Amino acid sequence: MKEIERKFLVKGEFKSFAYQVIPILQGYLSSLPERTVRVRLYGERAYLTIKGISDAKGVSRFEWEKEISPEEARELMKICEPGVIDKSRYLIRVDAHLYEVDEFHGDNTGLILAEIELLSENEVFVKPEWLGEEVTGNPCYYNSFLVKCPYTKWMDK
Amino acid sequence: MKEIERKFLVKGEFKSFAYQVIPILQGYLSSLPERTVRVRLYGERAYLTIKGISDAKGVSRFEWEKEISPEEARELMKICEPGVIDKSRYLIRVDAHLYEVDEFHGDNTGLILAEIELLSENEVFVKPEWLGEEVTGNPCYYNSFLVKCPYTKWMDK
Repeated sequence: MKEIERKFLVKGEFKSFAYQVIPILQGYLSSLPERTVRVRLYGERAYLTIKGISDAKGVSRFEWEKEISPEEARELMKICEPGVIDKSRYLIRVDAHLYEVDEFHGDNTGLILAEIELLSENEVFVKPEWLGEEVTGNPCYYNSFLVKCPYTKWMDK
Repeated sequence: MKEIERKFLVKGEFKSFAYQVIPILQGYLSSLPERTVRVRLYGERAYLTIKGISDAKGVSRFEWEKEISPEEARELMKICEPGVIDKSRYLIRVDAHLYEVDEFHGDNTGLILAEIELLSENEVFVKPEWLGEEVTGNPCYYNSFLVKCPYTKWMDK
């Protein structure tokens, strides 16, 4: 499966538009962009996800995912790379699309990212007013980079 | 699950003792010993396996495994680290135990390794006469190392 995603910073109040909020904890068995292996606790559920490298535009990326038990996820997290991503995901519908807005905690406090998944690279979608600058394909905003280089340690913000 | 394994070189004729031979192809999404993520085609089946680091003696190691489809394995192999392990596994019963004897091909031709899985670290087992020197815990014989540093390139053999 290829996923087509676009990613944006968030510049305004968005929380009141959410119909659900999900706590997420995730660690990496491999944080290399060429072969990312992620363990994620997503609310009451858990997943193992493997992603390949993005294409040149950073929009389309090979993705493989299997649901695992939360106990398995917790066991696997023990052997993950140091640093775990802790965030709250707000689900917001805007017209026909779903925005996933991640508010980061811990070492990434202050960072809020919105992501939208599209069926094709040319698909039209509505940008709500709280949506900020697009950062699709910018590796600094990959969660796998934020593990090693968290937002609160960035110099140039 | 913790696995307790001991690993040996093979010094004599062993093939006639095998009751089954299975072709194996395996690649690594992460070959770090702290968090190995392996994709394996095993005969007609396929598995994703994650292993943690060994204890000090190199005998006991955290292991997690899920069966996946051969098609998924082939997709995942495309994004694995360069180099794939190609070997034939001979299954040999010796008294109550199973020896898995791997004859390597490709860049690891010439290398033959036997492995036995035990229920406890002190379990007694029979060593058949074709069994050579023990190499348990020697990282040079990890498959994840053989990907990067194959046997035919070793200087000191």
